[in-house]
Amino acid sequence: MYSRIIRLSVLVVSLSLITVNNPLQTSIAFAGIGYVVTYTLIPRLTKSFIRVGLKGKDLSKPPPVYEIAESMGAVSAITYLFLMFGLIPFIFFKYLVSFTSLSNDESISDNYATQYQSLANNRLFPHNKLAEYLSAVLSLQSTTMLGFLDDLFDIKWRHKFFLPAVASLPLLIVYYVDFSVTSVVVPKFITNIAGGEELLQLLNQLIIVGNYIVSKVSGLSFGTLNDYVVTEDSPKLLDLGVFYYGYLASVSIFTPNSINILAGVNGLEVGQSVVLGIIFLANDFCYLFSSNVPQAAYDSHLFSVIFIIPFMGVSLALLQYNWFPAKVFVGDTYCYFSGMLFAIVGILGHFSKTLLLFLLPQIVNFIYSVPQLFGIVPCPRHRLPKFNIKDGLMYPSYGQLQESNSVGKNLVKFLATFGLISTRRDEKTNEITEFSNMTIINLVLVWFGPLREDTLCTVLLAIQLFVGLFMIGIRHTVGPWLFGYDNLSWGVS
Amino acid sequence: MYSRIIRLSVLVVSLSLITVNNPLQTSIAFAGIGYVVTYTLIPRLTKSFIRVGLKGKDLSKPPPVYEIAESMGAVSAITYLFLMFGLIPFIFFKYLVSFTSLSNDESISDNYATQYQSLANNRLFPHNKLAEYLSAVLSLQSTTMLGFLDDLFDIKWRHKFFLPAVASLPLLIVYYVDFSVTSVVVPKFITNIAGGEELLQLLNQLIIVGNYIVSKVSGLSFGTLNDYVVTEDSPKLLDLGVFYYGYLASVSIFTPNSINILAGVNGLEVGQSVVLGIIFLANDFCYLFSSNVPQAAYDSHLFSVIFIIPFMGVSLALLQYNWFPAKVFVGDTYCYFSGMLFAIVGILGHFSKTLLLFLLPQIVNFIYSVPQLFGIVPCPRHRLPKFNIKDGLMYPSYGQLQESNSVGKNLVKFLATFGLISTRRDEKTNEITEFSNMTIINLVLVWFGPLREDTLCTVLLAIQLFVGLFMIGIRHTVGPWLFGYDNLSWGVS
Repeated sequence: MYSRIIRLSVLVVSLSLITVNNPLQTSIAFAGIGYVVTYTLIPRLTKSFIRVGLKGKDLSKPPPVYEIAESMGAVSAITYLFLMFGLIPFIFFKYLVSFTSLSNDESISDNYATQYQSLANNRLFPHNKLAEYLSAVLSLQSTTMLGFLDDLFDIKWRHKFFLPAVASLPLLIVYYVDFSVTSVVVPKFITNIAGGEELLQLLNQLIIVGNYIVSKVSGLSFGTLNDYVVTEDSPKLLDLGVFYYGYLASVSIFTPNSINILAGVNGLEVGQSVVLGIIFLANDFCYLFSSNVPQAAYDSHLFSVIFIIPFMGVSLALLQYNWFPAKVFVGDTYCYFSGMLFAIVGILGHFSKTLLLFLLPQIVNFIYSVPQLFGIVPCPRHRLPKFNIKDGLMYPSYGQLQESNSVGKNLVKFLATFGLISTRRDEKTNEITEFSNMTIINLVLVWFGPLREDTLCTVLLAIQLFVGLFMIGIRHTVGPWLFGYDNLSWGVS
Repeated sequence: MYSRIIRLSVLVVSLSLITVNNPLQTSIAFAGIGYVVTYTLIPRLTKSFIRVGLKGKDLSKPPPVYEIAESMGAVSAITYLFLMFGLIPFIFFKYLVSFTSLSNDESISDNYATQYQSLANNRLFPHNKLAEYLSAVLSLQSTTMLGFLDDLFDIKWRHKFFLPAVASLPLLIVYYVDFSVTSVVVPKFITNIAGGEELLQLLNQLIIVGNYIVSKVSGLSFGTLNDYVVTEDSPKLLDLGVFYYGYLASVSIFTPNSINILAGVNGLEVGQSVVLGIIFLANDFCYLFSSNVPQAAYDSHLFSVIFIIPFMGVSLALLQYNWFPAKVFVGDTYCYFSGMLFAIVGILGHFSKTLLLFLLPQIVNFIYSVPQLFGIVPCPRHRLPKFNIKDGLMYPSYGQLQESNSVGKNLVKFLATFGLISTRRDEKTNEITEFSNMTIINLVLVWFGPLREDTLCTVLLAIQLFVGLFMIGIRHTVGPWLFGYDNLSWGVS
């Protein structure tokens, strides 16, 4: 009852906030609508999802364990996508008006008509911005669809791994035609150390050869269209050419997958996405509310804000159902959708490197997981922490270490030395037989002891938030010092 | 074995046909790839589809009736969408090259750089074309996703009816900013008859009032940006303004649904789509291979061809599995996907009215169905023709007519007079008690007698093909006479 009144109020306030002259405010209004729609739809759709087999058991709960609906993130994602369709006329409103008011006036004078014609020929409407927007929504929709098909059909890992890169193709093409910036800034300390300059020269030569070959084969040439002037004092640039597109494609593969593997605790998938959203917005607002920010950087971060705010609405509604004790699971659909969203705003917003800074916990989790993912040490089917029925707490789960695996054994010993893993030894031989599974979820339990599931999730989210906010600080303090400039006032990203 | 050799040959030929300088040829190559991929994937995926409940019984087969996979059109659709992603760089290749060769030359002179800068500011790259392309793929993908969710969850009719209109929003916005042509040509005979001119004036006044209200509310103004000059001799135009967008949205709702209701016979959904594809291509080639075709019309029909040819590839592979006796069903997914594709090329290609001419059998089927769809006469759950186990032929299926329904009874009598329906009468009272269900599928059986399922399908497809080709003739012979011009040489659509 209360919930219904709150939802109704949110909806009314949201609808009243919609305005044609303020994309930011309209975006907030759409977030409200997205929240209400998602919150209302999820309980109505759980039965249908369960009926088609989109369901799962929550293994971290005391019996009786019911099956609950899986992939409910699809509801958030589809609501979001429809909202982004609806946002288009509001985002481009001022152009639509200027365009049509010029084109439709019945009493248009001849002189005026000529002027209009020349404006039309010069494409008054920012088609490049529209193409950016459409390519972003398209990539996001493709990824959502892939995620949903994965939930439904359990697509094999080797089949699905590269699919986000295909889904990001429209994005990369828009990047190619609109920006073409493929150079990265080299930190000053590299050029300052002995041999650094020479190393850089060698790397540069290799890149040039690689680009030459690709250009000969494809007929295209990749390289920098610098949108800023390089002066004597300005930072040193390394132009990666076609390799930069490889890097961007990797970002679009890595981000969704990295969120997908930091999962398995109620609320963690949506929670980390919401926290990432907060971090991204905090960074964006640094640009939007600073003075002297170049127009290009301002536009990029406005783009980011417009995409992330409605995402927060549909995600918060999902989080309420997914938080401990979860009533629904979010599915790969949501992880792919959310990961791709951050990849997109990072790529089209020219802050793909900053994006990786914010994803540090995910990156650490991935690197920490590598020995298990690539089979250096055994990887059990599930690496979730273990639920103990007696005290209702979560404990680290353990993998078995074979006698013969000496590489694995040394690795585990090495990690154990630094307290980065917990081990169990054979009572007789004192040999290591088991090790805590290599995820930062287990690591938190190793460090902080057994925790209730919601506390565990909260600790992980707090780490994500702290790291993210710290990285924003690093980005704009140590970053400029390392690289010799900051784009808050410089317009370089 | 033979099939494998053929597929391999098609793949090899297709790959060798891919070229950067000929979008048409590359599109054909992609059709070949699409055919091979779809043909290969479908048998591998049927089990997975059946497992999640995407399955159905073929009621028109002798026992034992097995359940076969439903919604396999999703495989065609998704293959197609990925191909269209891959096509982007080929379609825009010449711009990509000219763009980058200008931007990347290391030895670029100052003078040249200035020139480039001015070109870049004028947006050398055709972002409007890219936005068109992206919006088309986006709308198509949304519709495919909706179709698939419909197959999976059985979305209610009233919920799903308007969703294609939302999916077509990006398309309408691109139409708004790129073309804005909202006027229709008034056939000469209307202005020539007595009172025609006055009627037109009245209609025009009503439209102006409607547009005025919408403009006041929305802040936007809708109207004509004529891309051709209106002269004394030129045809009379009626500017529908915002109502034209309503009409376009209706087209995008009608087309997918009209294909979806002309269904239920093995091969018919895909078959009619393939035939429609042939008709569209025939019409497009009239433009592409005529001399003196204005550039805008040429571009529109090239766009249509590029979208339809790969569609033919993925559809033909599906047709092989769906043809009598069907091994798979295509699902609403395919009907929505295919319908939206034709709506999109019609809308963005400026031939939405010609599109409706080609859809005449579907329109006739819809109008013929109206009494049942809107409950004027009873509508049984299935209106499929009835399979007779004894002779293996299809017979018309019948609906019951209540005693009390006098409106329905008169309607049925009226249709029966013209041989447009078959009836059964009570032996005693001689009152009509049953009538053949109102679909053109049943009507064909009423007219031509019982047919085997594949013959029935072939007859329906032949009608579609004949009507379509006839309409192309009408369009370019009677059309110009009715309207006073033809855009094959005029550039008006």
